[in-house]
Amino acid sequence: MSGVAVIGAGQSKFGVRNDVSMAELAHEAVKQALNDANVEKEDIDFVVLANMGIWSSEVLTPAMICEYSGIKAGSMRVEAACASGSAAISVGYSKIASGECNAVLVLGLEKMNEVGTQEVVELIGRAGNYFWVFENFGMTFPGYYAMYATAYMNKYGAKEEDLALVAVKNHYYGAKNPTSQFRNEIKVEDVLKSPYISWPLKLLDCSPISDGASAVILANENIAKESDDKVWIKTQAYSTGCFNTYKKDDFTSIHSARISAEIAYRKAGIENPVKQIDVAEVHDCFTIAEIMAYEDLGFAERGKGVELLREEQTYIGGKIPVNLDGGLKAKGHPIGATGVSQAVEIYKQLLYKAENGRQADINNGIGLTHNVGGDGHFSYVTIYSA
Amino acid sequence: MSGVAVIGAGQSKFGVRNDVSMAELAHEAVKQALNDANVEKEDIDFVVLANMGIWSSEVLTPAMICEYSGIKAGSMRVEAACASGSAAISVGYSKIASGECNAVLVLGLEKMNEVGTQEVVELIGRAGNYFWVFENFGMTFPGYYAMYATAYMNKYGAKEEDLALVAVKNHYYGAKNPTSQFRNEIKVEDVLKSPYISWPLKLLDCSPISDGASAVILANENIAKESDDKVWIKTQAYSTGCFNTYKKDDFTSIHSARISAEIAYRKAGIENPVKQIDVAEVHDCFTIAEIMAYEDLGFAERGKGVELLREEQTYIGGKIPVNLDGGLKAKGHPIGATGVSQAVEIYKQLLYKAENGRQADINNGIGLTHNVGGDGHFSYVTIYSA
Repeated sequence: MSGVAVIGAGQSKFGVRNDVSMAELAHEAVKQALNDANVEKEDIDFVVLANMGIWSSEVLTPAMICEYSGIKAGSMRVEAACASGSAAISVGYSKIASGECNAVLVLGLEKMNEVGTQEVVELIGRAGNYFWVFENFGMTFPGYYAMYATAYMNKYGAKEEDLALVAVKNHYYGAKNPTSQFRNEIKVEDVLKSPYISWPLKLLDCSPISDGASAVILANENIAKESDDKVWIKTQAYSTGCFNTYKKDDFTSIHSARISAEIAYRKAGIENPVKQIDVAEVHDCFTIAEIMAYEDLGFAERGKGVELLREEQTYIGGKIPVNLDGGLKAKGHPIGATGVSQAVEIYKQLLYKAENGRQADINNGIGLTHNVGGDGHFSYVTIYSA
Repeated sequence: MSGVAVIGAGQSKFGVRNDVSMAELAHEAVKQALNDANVEKEDIDFVVLANMGIWSSEVLTPAMICEYSGIKAGSMRVEAACASGSAAISVGYSKIASGECNAVLVLGLEKMNEVGTQEVVELIGRAGNYFWVFENFGMTFPGYYAMYATAYMNKYGAKEEDLALVAVKNHYYGAKNPTSQFRNEIKVEDVLKSPYISWPLKLLDCSPISDGASAVILANENIAKESDDKVWIKTQAYSTGCFNTYKKDDFTSIHSARISAEIAYRKAGIENPVKQIDVAEVHDCFTIAEIMAYEDLGFAERGKGVELLREEQTYIGGKIPVNLDGGLKAKGHPIGATGVSQAVEIYKQLLYKAENGRQADINNGIGLTHNVGGDGHFSYVTIYSA
């Protein structure tokens, strides 16, 4: 079994990208990743595309991208809702670790603005559960996370002001990230004054509707040893959660994420995450999600996640910096691209390549990504080492 | 790197399955496969679902199936159009070969009749290329294969009667397969009298719109050695074809399938496919597709595929029996299930488990599946050995 390394990364500008086609958007990331890895298109053995695509008219997107970018290799599309990017990395990892492939392009891509906002809201509300929860009760996707937020606030006494601290931090770093959808800093008051989407979540508690592409080149040990800039995938763990919301017994934590973190830590030999992990990317689709992630990943005890925020311990210089690219909240959340984008950021952080004063101190050379699909339906936790 | 074996298989009845929900349909195959493999749900480390799903309202299908079937494991959905099933097997294979998983459930599932025929025709017409070919020229999916058929007939002098022989053979075996959508034998005259869908393809040249589920349990060497009934995945190869129809330079062969076959044969040490392979499953979405498959797989020289049919060499007792389960034509073509269903059939054939006088003679213990997505956008060729 070969070790698997990230040897190059690329990312398009995230945002409303009506200026490009899907293939052009993908190529922005693919071209950068190939250049960064210093490999030729001919060296790619397989292309794994993470893409949800329910808002797009084109259905055979991997073939479209291979043709546009001039890559002749096998390909497939992988989907696990908002965790699609990490699922695709998982496929690339296995194809190299098994010795089947030498180099794999993992591409995350979404162009949600191909349809209007109303239609995105309708389509994403299905994830979740369509038949019972969406169709019967008219649930929206912010509604799922609002249930987490109300349960969490009720149990632990957190306030809307505490949730807002996640948005403030992530906009602070998003403002420094040239690929971010939003590059404006915000204050707690801005969040509190923004309109309610689903109480207690307000507009500025929510990640946006985004277009974007992210790419990494994964390679085996032989190729990686020739590369100066590489980061190893130490391990990945995954878990599937409850399908039906009404079967959940707890709305203050994401069960599948806790299971994935436990497995990943055991496999990677991590006993004290806060001390051993230098930098993390977590799935902050809504502000409450980042707080639960702190706890599900063992960065804080249950109910104590907000204290990390109040003490600014997830900023650079704190105990464990989180989402230094702006997170889903500020960088944007083009669904298929998100998990790959987390890998792009960890790659840059572990190699001291992050721009504009958003570089963490790297002591142990360990980074983590936490990527959740649906409202906990799929969780993927990946550990990287420099 | 561990060897990877199929240790159990299951398949639902294919057809119009308005009698069951998607989760129930999936469970028909999952339950059989688990029983057949003699493994417990708890032994499954990962679930790979092949599903195109564009006709379904539910979007988080892997989580739905895990919950319904009581499987607690990581999961994802994999899609490569009509080759989704083989792409999913490819992911399961890599996850075991890499040592990451011990046992993986690969499930193919499609419920196309959730929408009406007109809507299926509209949706499947996109695969292909939506923007240029479908939207501009109103192309349908049978239209793509009609272009192959006309080019082939023009170049090699094949007749509509020759194409019909594929349908006659596949209905002959489909009639013997208890899970087939169609269990009636047909004659050449029946095909010729059926209405044109897209000239020269008639209704009985086309595979149907189908619901169905197929499942295989893949396992590593340690688990497989405890199993009496196992078939090894010897190798798999894949290739991506032209995205845009107007960039194709040849409509008498599927280029990506030829590439995949070449690679698979080289990796598996197959120099004389007809002599070395005992039984094959090929992608007969339309009758012309099976004829091109014979040639792309090296069962016949270019332009000579029809001779194999005229001489009945792809029946049991011929040089190389093909599609003894009825193929996509008679068994049905529930898109995500199709590739997994091919694996189910090869598993049965190599272990002498095929029912009702549709068992091939197995001499070398080698079987092959050929699974094509789109009109050649994705090709997967897999070689199995008993």
